[in-house]
Amino acid sequence: MGIQTGRRVGVAFVGMGGAVATTAIAGIETIKSGSNRLDGLPLAGVSVAGLADYKDLVFGGWDLNGDDLASAATGHGVLTREDIENGAQALKGITPWPAVGSAKFCKNIDGANRIVAKDHRETVSVIANDLNRFRKESNLDDVVVINLASTERWPDLAEPVLNSAEAFEKGLDSSDESISPAMLYAYAAIKSGVPYANFTPSIAADVPALMELARELNVPVAGKDGKTGQTMMKTVLAPALKARQLHVDGWFSTNILGNRDGLALNDPNSLQSKLNTKGTVLDSILGYPVEDHLVHIHYYRPRGDDKEAWDNIDVTGFMGQRMQIKVNFLCKDSILAAPLVIEIARVLDLAKSRGDGGVQEQLSTFFKAPMVKNGHGPEHDFGKQQRMLFDWLGAQQ
Amino acid sequence: MGIQTGRRVGVAFVGMGGAVATTAIAGIETIKSGSNRLDGLPLAGVSVAGLADYKDLVFGGWDLNGDDLASAATGHGVLTREDIENGAQALKGITPWPAVGSAKFCKNIDGANRIVAKDHRETVSVIANDLNRFRKESNLDDVVVINLASTERWPDLAEPVLNSAEAFEKGLDSSDESISPAMLYAYAAIKSGVPYANFTPSIAADVPALMELARELNVPVAGKDGKTGQTMMKTVLAPALKARQLHVDGWFSTNILGNRDGLALNDPNSLQSKLNTKGTVLDSILGYPVEDHLVHIHYYRPRGDDKEAWDNIDVTGFMGQRMQIKVNFLCKDSILAAPLVIEIARVLDLAKSRGDGGVQEQLSTFFKAPMVKNGHGPEHDFGKQQRMLFDWLGAQQ
Amino acid sequence: MGIQTGRRVGVAFVGMGGAVATTAIAGIETIKSGSNRLDGLPLAGVSVAGLADYKDLVFGGWDLNGDDLASAATGHGVLTREDIENGAQALKGITPWPAVGSAKFCKNIDGANRIVAKDHRETVSVIANDLNRFRKESNLDDVVVINLASTERWPDLAEPVLNSAEAFEKGLDSSDESISPAMLYAYAAIKSGVPYANFTPSIAADVPALMELARELNVPVAGKDGKTGQTMMKTVLAPALKARQLHVDGWFSTNILGNRDGLALNDPNSLQSKLNTKGTVLDSILGYPVEDHLVHIHYYRPRGDDKEAWDNIDVTGFMGQRMQIKVNFLCKDSILAAPLVIEIARVLDLAKSRGDGGVQEQLSTFFKAPMVKNGHGPEHDFGKQQRMLFDWLGAQQ
Amino acid sequence: MGIQTGRRVGVAFVGMGGAVATTAIAGIETIKSGSNRLDGLPLAGVSVAGLADYKDLVFGGWDLNGDDLASAATGHGVLTREDIENGAQALKGITPWPAVGSAKFCKNIDGANRIVAKDHRETVSVIANDLNRFRKESNLDDVVVINLASTERWPDLAEPVLNSAEAFEKGLDSSDESISPAMLYAYAAIKSGVPYANFTPSIAADVPALMELARELNVPVAGKDGKTGQTMMKTVLAPALKARQLHVDGWFSTNILGNRDGLALNDPNSLQSKLNTKGTVLDSILGYPVEDHLVHIHYYRPRGDDKEAWDNIDVTGFMGQRMQIKVNFLCKDSILAAPLVIEIARVLDLAKSRGDGGVQEQLSTFFKAPMVKNGHGPEHDFGKQQRMLFDWLGAQQ
Repeated sequence: MGIQTGRRVGVAFVGMGGAVATTAIAGIETIKSGSNRLDGLPLAGVSVAGLADYKDLVFGGWDLNGDDLASAATGHGVLTREDIENGAQALKGITPWPAVGSAKFCKNIDGANRIVAKDHRETVSVIANDLNRFRKESNLDDVVVINLASTERWPDLAEPVLNSAEAFEKGLDSSDESISPAMLYAYAAIKSGVPYANFTPSIAADVPALMELARELNVPVAGKDGKTGQTMMKTVLAPALKARQLHVDGWFSTNILGNRDGLALNDPNSLQSKLNTKGTVLDSILGYPVEDHLVHIHYYRPRGDDKEAWDNIDVTGFMGQRMQIKVNFLCKDSILAAPLVIEIARVLDLAKSRGDGGVQEQLSTFFKAPMVKNGHGPEHDFGKQQRMLFDWLGAQQ
Repeated sequence: MGIQTGRRVGVAFVGMGGAVATTAIAGIETIKSGSNRLDGLPLAGVSVAGLADYKDLVFGGWDLNGDDLASAATGHGVLTREDIENGAQALKGITPWPAVGSAKFCKNIDGANRIVAKDHRETVSVIANDLNRFRKESNLDDVVVINLASTERWPDLAEPVLNSAEAFEKGLDSSDESISPAMLYAYAAIKSGVPYANFTPSIAADVPALMELARELNVPVAGKDGKTGQTMMKTVLAPALKARQLHVDGWFSTNILGNRDGLALNDPNSLQSKLNTKGTVLDSILGYPVEDHLVHIHYYRPRGDDKEAWDNIDVTGFMGQRMQIKVNFLCKDSILAAPLVIEIARVLDLAKSRGDGGVQEQLSTFFKAPMVKNGHGPEHDFGKQQRMLFDWLGAQQ
Repeated sequence: MGIQTGRRVGVAFVGMGGAVATTAIAGIETIKSGSNRLDGLPLAGVSVAGLADYKDLVFGGWDLNGDDLASAATGHGVLTREDIENGAQALKGITPWPAVGSAKFCKNIDGANRIVAKDHRETVSVIANDLNRFRKESNLDDVVVINLASTERWPDLAEPVLNSAEAFEKGLDSSDESISPAMLYAYAAIKSGVPYANFTPSIAADVPALMELARELNVPVAGKDGKTGQTMMKTVLAPALKARQLHVDGWFSTNILGNRDGLALNDPNSLQSKLNTKGTVLDSILGYPVEDHLVHIHYYRPRGDDKEAWDNIDVTGFMGQRMQIKVNFLCKDSILAAPLVIEIARVLDLAKSRGDGGVQEQLSTFFKAPMVKNGHGPEHDFGKQQRMLFDWLGAQQ
Repeated sequence: MGIQTGRRVGVAFVGMGGAVATTAIAGIETIKSGSNRLDGLPLAGVSVAGLADYKDLVFGGWDLNGDDLASAATGHGVLTREDIENGAQALKGITPWPAVGSAKFCKNIDGANRIVAKDHRETVSVIANDLNRFRKESNLDDVVVINLASTERWPDLAEPVLNSAEAFEKGLDSSDESISPAMLYAYAAIKSGVPYANFTPSIAADVPALMELARELNVPVAGKDGKTGQTMMKTVLAPALKARQLHVDGWFSTNILGNRDGLALNDPNSLQSKLNTKGTVLDSILGYPVEDHLVHIHYYRPRGDDKEAWDNIDVTGFMGQRMQIKVNFLCKDSILAAPLVIEIARVLDLAKSRGDGGVQEQLSTFFKAPMVKNGHGPEHDFGKQQRMLFDWLGAQQ
């Protein structure tokens, strides 16, 4: 009898004090306090059995910066003073758990709130314990982990340790240097049966070793690199150019942004990870290589979290005549990202309750470099990605 | 035995001396002379049984301006001097047939190459004879008619004469003033069993009287108002904004162009017809009314046929935060339109050979205001329109 | 002997509750409270004997809306909540004096806080008394009047009553309908020996009758129509295009804004006044008529006081080759206007104390349609206007 | 008696086969053939005694590529086929003289048309002989040299050999490696009493050694780096922002271009030379350092010689409120540059005939990094530069 309430789902963020995580948490707290504005939440109007309600999400997570979330959010300058005041009750109550840091993998970001552990195995054990404690103390039906930490440099993907579940286990035993912090979180989650998504360009659950593990243990994983602004537009426009057979002679993309993400990208190694995930989208959709596809990201402080993208597209049409399309997107990075993160968490949880483990391709619409189940290349066409998602959900688009 | 050649299909343009028609003809003649560049032709890579080859298209048509097409094309300034020289042989050989003119329906465009006829019935008979002669003299398997004439003002759609096939026939008998030139062409085509498409915003085969006639005689018809630049972009972007639940607070669209089309739109009545077809697209895709959706078109001579669109989109995202997207499309009106016209002709011809008459909804992707078979509203989402087309063709997208 | 303090100067705004006036007042109050940020104030770094200090400005004025300025400012949405709180003490203390209204001259703006007067003479007398009372009660050394009210429609400038001081006096006696509210304020100020500037496109002190009066009474007057955003840019760019002999084939200017000013411009008569002052700038600087100079202003609510201008300039350079310049100005109308208004007030007061009456041409840099002393046309070149101002001030540019 | 004809002035270009030089030559030849279109020539309307007429200019010059100018121009794609045909007579007749090349100073550009000389002294002698022969064979009243060659990397400016005329002479004797090709041309010109201007970012007559020599021999010199597109705009806009006290928080400038100039800039050393001359303009005009002033140049082939600049300017205005200005300049590099080069040649020749030697500061308006006579910094404000030029000319602006 009584009113049936939904599942309580815990969302544990790697990088909980960051702009995206604090925005996501503040937003959901606002909804819990009665706001009806669901703008920006892609699945706001979708009703599917088993999908957790926004109000039933509970948040936890790790961060190298141990400040409470209200302070962290104030520093990011994403939320208005008013929003932070309204959500203050909730945000002040939360401080991140100690996190794994590695100057080797991410130079420009550091902090004191570190896990004290003598080796990889002990680190993994701390993370797994955090998840268990979170589940118990918050009385959760289930938990998911989402990586929102600053972009790490790319490891050497050819290292054997990353290429089979067995070698990876041995690598953990020897605290192998090729295993990054992002992978330690992913491993701990998967091993605990907790769905894991990577919203950053870092390498994590997408190494063969961890994909194998997720498949074997039937744990949902997804990634990677959230598709928010410029690349989203690219995957929306390119299919239309292809449909009209307007040949893309060049696509020049430049970005200016001044937030912590931008600062991390000032480390050329981290930038390279980012560009890698941005690069192939266009050629994949168009079916031919665009030789003059340039993508630039610049750290430009006046904007803070307000990101601006300027794209110039040169196309050739009928009779060889040339035309230009220019797109100027004045967006807000975390405002676009936070609701996607929330939907990814809800869908991962639904996948787990449906018993659907391994790579969740239906989440492709949310990622710049979608992980796929096997050899075939990822789908980048935004419209087709949307169809995949709604087909999987069993909902009307 | 010999090589099996395809169907020879005649394309008769209403407004044959205009920029779009001359560009389409020059383009196909270039392909006939051996060019392999098929940029801008949406179905260039599609292989479907029964679809006429580009090389098997033959052109004819009407125009109030009786100049040969080489002179006309030179005047429009769309094609390069080189293109016109190369296509000159073909273009010089063609002069438009006398056309129906009406200062009442289109004020700013006029010419001396007029059909001499005492009433509507005689006019219709001249048009039908033109089609017959074209078929015979050019040894065609079939013919289609495409309306590319300057935009007419809208008639009073409530007039009974436009609302049933029977009343329309009587209206023809009495040379009823509500029947526009565009309708006379459409009627003559349908009555001759010739597929008809309306690429302009004028009212033609979309009055109930003519839709009824097309259905009864099982003749393919389609329309209306070619979707080339700004509106195409709108139907590409709006579904993505909806997918991300970015609420559209306002959409400001302005256009500058300096060609004959722009001059015709200087007549406020013609402009109104244009704006009517542009207006509903956005609300239909988004599912809610955008109160500040402004669309402006300005006649601005420095550009000639080079049209420029500037769009500003104001959206609200997560936590009520505002963002802006600006799209600046430096396009070429006729260069975008001509290949669509060619594909419409090919698909209409295929529909006829398949015995599929009446409204051809699968052509929606090419129109701002797609005609639909019955009560349901048109599909405006560009991606869904593409799927409709390829499903109908039975081809891989 | 004590610290020598500057002159206390009263600034009386026509339209005191509007966005520009409340922003100007809040800004000066912030400076009085100790802020050192003088951004946007053109003469902030200029030191000239006799020029009133920002801290020595005192505000009063009329408005049809009798709300206190804190409420008014909140409604305009220009200032942040924080700014209004900080300035609240000052703003709450001020309510506008009853104002002259006329549905005949300005349709879309109305209010209840009206001067009760049976005719023009009585109205003028009320205004003059307001100025006297202001001077006495606030212990002012001097007063200036600045018109910031909503744009009125243009009167018939050929009316004899507007063309000589003598006829104007008679017109006041008979409450002549050609005399607008803006002229009543201007007359009352000039007659009271109070400098007057018109920051709006309305016709006021620039009718021959009032220019004659100002000259006779040696009262400084200036105008008109504040040069803030798009037109300012135009007068900056056009001289450079001329210097490089880049021929302007067309200049397309469009504006979107959603504040009270925009609403008033929805009355086509008021819009015409605005366009009149914008029109001639370009031809005057370039020395030849730009045939395709189009200027559009659109009321677009999503932006509120945030105005956006998009300009496209088509130029022809060497060898007849064409180029384009596009300028997109995301500005804030009142934020740009308020500091200009403050500087105009300070310079007018300085002119009076220098005994320099009549039209103040050196203020041209602040106006779209600068008033000039005699027959010669106004200077629109921004750089030359700046030089005029600094030469008059006797200051280093 | 007879018609008095003007001075015949020879213009010798370093880099004569390049896009700028061929455009300049074709343009002047068009004028000689009777064209009245003087668009883009800044001094077209200026009448000053002693200033050579456009029709009296005669061209010669050096290039590593020995092709005749008609072939070279066709390759650059700047001029229309029609222009080249019209100017073909003149262009075909001209082949560049052998030039000085140095892979050490300019990596990406090379050619076979090289001066054969065993050392610096012999090279200088060849250049001087070229100038003498040019003067005699073309029956010239005088000659000027303009450097239009590809940008060289910067030498070590601290090298003593570059810092006094005496040391430089010794450096020539020893074929010192610090002396670049550009300096050899400059030295040869100055020593021959021939005025010299540097339109490129390379270091040439601006080393102390050569400035000293020019002063001693009273030979006019000017430079450097032609101010055509983005930087020109910057020096036009920045003074206006300063005049309105709009504080520049950041200025992001990006450029895409695909011509030979762009290719040379793909060598990071050459790019650095370019950025050096672009950097200081802004701070100098504004009077404070703009910390986020980013300038990027990207080689992007689809555009060829059509250069596009996108600037975003973040400013703070009254009450600390933020605004943005975006400028998108679709320009043509050589079309903007060629007429400036012509005017520089004419003014240099005038300076010589007036006996005004040494650095010609009045040419500042044409340069990104104007050379100045002594310690004081250069004037970058476009309006003030224009005034300097017209004051020197003794002409009405």
